[in-house]
Amino acid sequence: MSTAELFDAVDVIRTKRDKGRLSDAQIDWVIDAYTRGVVAEEQMSALNMAILLNGMDRPEIARWTAAMIASGERMDFSGLSRPTSDKHSTGGVGDKITLPLAPLVAVFGVAVPQLSGRGLGHTGGTLDKLESIPGWRAALSNAEMLAQLESIGAVICQAGSGLAPADRKLYALRDVTGTVEAIPLIASSIMSKKIAEGTGSLVLDVKVGSGAFMKNIDQATELARTMVDLGTDAGVRTVALLTDMSTPLGLTAGNALEVRESVEVLAGGGPADVVELTVALAREMLAGAGVTGVDPADALVDGRAMDVWKRMIRAQGGDPDAALPWASETELVLAPADGVVVRLDALAVGVAAWRLGAGRARRSDTVQAGAGVVMHAKPGALVRAGEPLMTLHTDTPERFSRAREALLDAVTIAPEGSAPPRTPLILDRIAAG
Amino acid sequence: MSTAELFDAVDVIRTKRDKGRLSDAQIDWVIDAYTRGVVAEEQMSALNMAILLNGMDRPEIARWTAAMIASGERMDFSGLSRPTSDKHSTGGVGDKITLPLAPLVAVFGVAVPQLSGRGLGHTGGTLDKLESIPGWRAALSNAEMLAQLESIGAVICQAGSGLAPADRKLYALRDVTGTVEAIPLIASSIMSKKIAEGTGSLVLDVKVGSGAFMKNIDQATELARTMVDLGTDAGVRTVALLTDMSTPLGLTAGNALEVRESVEVLAGGGPADVVELTVALAREMLAGAGVTGVDPADALVDGRAMDVWKRMIRAQGGDPDAALPWASETELVLAPADGVVVRLDALAVGVAAWRLGAGRARRSDTVQAGAGVVMHAKPGALVRAGEPLMTLHTDTPERFSRAREALLDAVTIAPEGSAPPRTPLILDRIAAG
Repeated sequence: MSTAELFDAVDVIRTKRDKGRLSDAQIDWVIDAYTRGVVAEEQMSALNMAILLNGMDRPEIARWTAAMIASGERMDFSGLSRPTSDKHSTGGVGDKITLPLAPLVAVFGVAVPQLSGRGLGHTGGTLDKLESIPGWRAALSNAEMLAQLESIGAVICQAGSGLAPADRKLYALRDVTGTVEAIPLIASSIMSKKIAEGTGSLVLDVKVGSGAFMKNIDQATELARTMVDLGTDAGVRTVALLTDMSTPLGLTAGNALEVRESVEVLAGGGPADVVELTVALAREMLAGAGVTGVDPADALVDGRAMDVWKRMIRAQGGDPDAALPWASETELVLAPADGVVVRLDALAVGVAAWRLGAGRARRSDTVQAGAGVVMHAKPGALVRAGEPLMTLHTDTPERFSRAREALLDAVTIAPEGSAPPRTPLILDRIAAG
Repeated sequence: MSTAELFDAVDVIRTKRDKGRLSDAQIDWVIDAYTRGVVAEEQMSALNMAILLNGMDRPEIARWTAAMIASGERMDFSGLSRPTSDKHSTGGVGDKITLPLAPLVAVFGVAVPQLSGRGLGHTGGTLDKLESIPGWRAALSNAEMLAQLESIGAVICQAGSGLAPADRKLYALRDVTGTVEAIPLIASSIMSKKIAEGTGSLVLDVKVGSGAFMKNIDQATELARTMVDLGTDAGVRTVALLTDMSTPLGLTAGNALEVRESVEVLAGGGPADVVELTVALAREMLAGAGVTGVDPADALVDGRAMDVWKRMIRAQGGDPDAALPWASETELVLAPADGVVVRLDALAVGVAAWRLGAGRARRSDTVQAGAGVVMHAKPGALVRAGEPLMTLHTDTPERFSRAREALLDAVTIAPEGSAPPRTPLILDRIAAG
């Protein structure tokens, strides 16, 4: 280490290890020095574990986030004629909400800059889904993005590498060192990118349940509260909805399958839960952007959202009217007994879709556009023994058996007359204050 | 990671992060895979921090230690005609005890294999001290060591690199990641080398106080208990003495200065505290080796220990009768007032000796043989203003001012009639059971 360094990494680690507060100067230094490679991976790893186990308070998390933002560029939407609003989901199974939501909100004159990612593990990625549309491309320059926001109002594209580069380096480290699950680090990772992106308002969809990162409501509430505070402190109007992810959203999990379902929603149809969450999030985004007295549900029914969708897809090279890919092989999963479906586990379906080829285990893997799971019976549905519960789709039939393994305990069927536990889709709402 | 690996490093980290027990198989794998480079430094670093914060229980620590032993070679003293006994000190200021102790115990037919290290920071290293003797060499082959143990009974030499290589790698990592201070890791680091070395019995000198690694008696007791349990479980008769390190041992801190003081003890003189601790540790080592009915204090007075010392030094190329080096420059530190010395801080003296050139900041630094501190007034001594409290020795007089800085608050002088706090030198004894 050069003698010009302000701090010693071991002293910073010891501070947090011994349950102390990191000073602003320590945080600024450690993030900057880590980005420069002066603080080594193994030192940041020890610090991450100390943060995971000993926590950070609200000012520490805010400073940590600010330091990550300062590691890269900031975007500026202030030149747009429209207010901006963004949405972030912590990730779930069948969560295609961004697809109908971005054009829906744009209908009302709000610019929606959705900088999205690819899937890893059992949760899908928005870019992977859209790439199943022939011709569509995820990479836009900042200038292209701004032009599309001004002209169409909605853009879903790949986040540039200039935003919070410290976060990218840190996330890769956390992934291999068992420190992903630290709420201060999750919150600052998400919020550093959203604040650097420069959105005026932000709605967070924090998932709770087996298919989500946060398995229980207490953790999810803490994460949501932390992120809402971070956004608010940084001048972004931020609100969070806690939503159920014990069962998949909608009836599909898989890339082209979910695009197809999203288009159904944009055409005024689609599964009720997808419509409910899309409209609820749209209302929050519109409120955050200062748009009141409108009902976004109308714009799904009357075709306005579909119009924006088509323009948005075309602007990024895609053909919204082209046929979407189908997988070459399918197999049915049949109901083992008569009764009522009282449980359909989100994680199990997510893992099955992943194993069928819809997801990736490593960042370098490719995904199959057509692979995934179509569900025929969600919780509450009455089924008869031998009726199809799901259809599995893949181009590589050798994957069926591993997908079926993931589904062994995915479904619970109770005697007729039973009812699934009544879990509302939207569990809570967390706002500033 | 190869698909042939038994475990995933992230799963092992998560187990300890979530306060679980590591299984024997997880521990065996993680130590072996880390030694092979399959578990990355940043992964082991996260695991170390989780161990520091969440602890390990007795069977986990025993297995961790066994896995480190299994990473390298084991020595075997069973061919010797003598029983073996070893001593380990956790390190302090002025701690030259190994020098008179090893020959003293050998007088009574016990083989003493002292595999020692060099100093780092404010604590000195036994090899650095002995290297101030003209011609003496620290590196011996295993065959040379065994031959010297058989013929003379005492050897103090450099530990070979074959013992517990996992520990060497792990220690270097802990040093830069703020995880040195984990009691399970300290205990397994020390004990893996001592068990691998193959000694039949072991006496631990666990230092407590400002100049020691353990600043309070509770931590020191926990460390001592952990190490005694580890030794006992591995079949090594192990006992620990907790000894005071709030003030330096003896009247010297520095390499040649301490050899000179050790030779005084071997000649039947020397400071009372050095004699007391040498004899107490010798009694424990003799008891551990099954030798009873003898008084080691006699062998200091009648020259038998000195005879073994001279043979031991000569066997390793040294000239025990050669003049020892002196530093070229000295300065006095004077008493600022009349009164009684009630405190002489071990850490301050250790840092001063280090800054004068007796110690090293990096492993690659060299040390000055003559540098260090000679103390003229230990706690309890009556002094007059202007009398010398200490003499500072160095070959590089530009170091005096930084050494004096370290000593600014090293000494407390109270009005005549006061008494220093009565701290016994030997604070406690911890045995198996």
